[in-house]
Amino acid sequence: MKNPIITLTTDFGLKDPYVAEMKAVILNIKPDVRIVDLTHEIEKFNVKMGGYVLASAAPYFPKDTIHVVVVDPGVGTKRKPIIIKTKKAYYIGPDNGVLILAARKQGITSIYEISNRKLMLPRVSNTFHGRDIFAPAAAHLAKGVELSEFGPEIHEFTIPEFAKILRRKNKVVGEILHVDGFGNIITNFRGKELLKIGDVVCMELKDRQMKMKVCASYADVKPGEPLAIIGSHDFLEISINQGNASEEFSVKAGDKITIYRSCSNPEVD
Amino acid sequence: MKNPIITLTTDFGLKDPYVAEMKAVILNIKPDVRIVDLTHEIEKFNVKMGGYVLASAAPYFPKDTIHVVVVDPGVGTKRKPIIIKTKKAYYIGPDNGVLILAARKQGITSIYEISNRKLMLPRVSNTFHGRDIFAPAAAHLAKGVELSEFGPEIHEFTIPEFAKILRRKNKVVGEILHVDGFGNIITNFRGKELLKIGDVVCMELKDRQMKMKVCASYADVKPGEPLAIIGSHDFLEISINQGNASEEFSVKAGDKITIYRSCSNPEVD
Amino acid sequence: MKNPIITLTTDFGLKDPYVAEMKAVILNIKPDVRIVDLTHEIEKFNVKMGGYVLASAAPYFPKDTIHVVVVDPGVGTKRKPIIIKTKKAYYIGPDNGVLILAARKQGITSIYEISNRKLMLPRVSNTFHGRDIFAPAAAHLAKGVELSEFGPEIHEFTIPEFAKILRRKNKVVGEILHVDGFGNIITNFRGKELLKIGDVVCMELKDRQMKMKVCASYADVKPGEPLAIIGSHDFLEISINQGNASEEFSVKAGDKITIYRSCSNPEVD
Repeated sequence: MKNPIITLTTDFGLKDPYVAEMKAVILNIKPDVRIVDLTHEIEKFNVKMGGYVLASAAPYFPKDTIHVVVVDPGVGTKRKPIIIKTKKAYYIGPDNGVLILAARKQGITSIYEISNRKLMLPRVSNTFHGRDIFAPAAAHLAKGVELSEFGPEIHEFTIPEFAKILRRKNKVVGEILHVDGFGNIITNFRGKELLKIGDVVCMELKDRQMKMKVCASYADVKPGEPLAIIGSHDFLEISINQGNASEEFSVKAGDKITIYRSCSNPEVD
Repeated sequence: MKNPIITLTTDFGLKDPYVAEMKAVILNIKPDVRIVDLTHEIEKFNVKMGGYVLASAAPYFPKDTIHVVVVDPGVGTKRKPIIIKTKKAYYIGPDNGVLILAARKQGITSIYEISNRKLMLPRVSNTFHGRDIFAPAAAHLAKGVELSEFGPEIHEFTIPEFAKILRRKNKVVGEILHVDGFGNIITNFRGKELLKIGDVVCMELKDRQMKMKVCASYADVKPGEPLAIIGSHDFLEISINQGNASEEFSVKAGDKITIYRSCSNPEVD
Repeated sequence: MKNPIITLTTDFGLKDPYVAEMKAVILNIKPDVRIVDLTHEIEKFNVKMGGYVLASAAPYFPKDTIHVVVVDPGVGTKRKPIIIKTKKAYYIGPDNGVLILAARKQGITSIYEISNRKLMLPRVSNTFHGRDIFAPAAAHLAKGVELSEFGPEIHEFTIPEFAKILRRKNKVVGEILHVDGFGNIITNFRGKELLKIGDVVCMELKDRQMKMKVCASYADVKPGEPLAIIGSHDFLEISINQGNASEEFSVKAGDKITIYRSCSNPEVD
């Protein structure tokens, strides 16, 4: 590969030596690879958040980027380490669904189990496959090792229960996918399917009914006022101009959100 | 450019995919550039803190480094995206004053608006100009695109209201510019203009009068004791040896600080 | 050096410009070096934690990696800046013990004081030797400067009081070395000397007696249940499957831990 890039997404945080150990293992095998931290602040064991963050960022990376994700509550169990090849990139991580949202967007072409011990660290621990299995796999792949050398091709894999949308005559019910560092509330509604800029949207969030405008930019309302916006990843977001919406409305990832198709009588289903 | 460096300073934090998306966009356009994180922990929307941190670090970077700053409460409004060229470096960000403190120290030679859509991402969102405008501009600049291709040269730009010093017969009044991760209180007094090592300085901080020695190093006082020191960026700092001064004195960025020219009678103006 | 790597371990955090300033200084001297952040989240002034984290990660890095550590409560005092050469790597930092745990594991071959002003920044502050002394030393070393040019070889150096183990007829008493971001409690017991997988271990932690199984992986117990495990660095760890052990048991680094050789009568010494 020319100019290979490996990205790292984990729930390890930056306080511990774990991320650096993964980088060290990669640099031993492929000294000239470029490593980009996607984030290490995924909530511990939150496969859904890992999947969302990866799917947000992956489309912006160059072709053939290798994305390594270690959000792995099942480390040490029989869940398989896998490599997914898509039309645009490679995804390496545990077969727990964390890779699927990003990979499907790009079209999955094949999936391989990582079982060849020669492409792992000599000693594989039961607690840190990021360092012992996933990092070496990414580095060997960047070095040009064929997918079929890692292990058998597989055709069954875990499809995660990602946030679903419930459509009713008068409303749609979804959930909060992620709350970002600004307190923006990112929902699982595809913004453009439901709404357009200028609409007034009536919604229910944590038993609280609200009405707000779908805006083109945060500054369309005064500082401190709420707005709906179709965010940069096409999801509908609830924000407060220069404020923190998740604190104001006391919501968190996983909470339910309802949008009414009409504001005239939001109580009627 | 040879060995181009792009630095990134934002208020995005590291939990979200935003920083990685900017890096991905840059690497698509200029695969061999070096990207250095200056910090992503600027307080949300705190243009003054962003300006201070950038001005602190920028002088240490090699010639022709490209500094990208995204602390941008006005994203989506008519505030212009700009590139400032100085005698030593390039600064890219919103025209809200965040670039000025650093750029002026190096001598501004010209300022250009970024308005050429061909040098942005194909789709420009209203919420994330860091990824859609500033990151591509930095990468194209590193690649050798001429400044005049980005847009028209401009001669009016925003000068921020940075912390000012008030000089009186018997005292000077300034403010706290920044509290660092160690709790060191960084004031906007140029240390060497006012004081020299060995002086005893009388000050008022949040209605509390204090006397302390200007020291050459933290260890000139016992652990737990306060001291004044001329910090590594020439600003006067208030610290506690191996302790946290901002917690001890309950102060934060923006608070007022008064230094008396003589300790004999600090009450008289 | 070919493909030189410099790692950085500090207690600076990521909010301030300090880490970026060190990188800028390095890149001025040696533009093509690779810089890897080991961590910047060492607890302020915690030399023991810095030493532990460095010793955990250093073995995974390629030969001739240069490790810079700035956990330096004595900055500005007479403590010496040093370079330690081992059979595998170089360690640069203050002579306060922080480098020793990692360096000893690899076999120390020589130690030099850094005293040559020509290999420091032109102006050396009393508060930031990371930028003014240690970063330039690392970059010059990566560039090929001989160790003897930095200053005199020295034969006396600080050996830190790291956590010790007390062995008694019926028990061993150690301490908690580190609590990681998952809440895993890392003790200073070498796991394999004391225990093997399948053993039941009786211990006392903060006046609370507990019994738990030594497991091969977290998933050997149900989510929420405690277990003992020999971690990826060979230390005995106390964890909770998908939970936070340090919160559950209210312990922190430095706390005492006792392991009884037999569970039959743990009270008898």
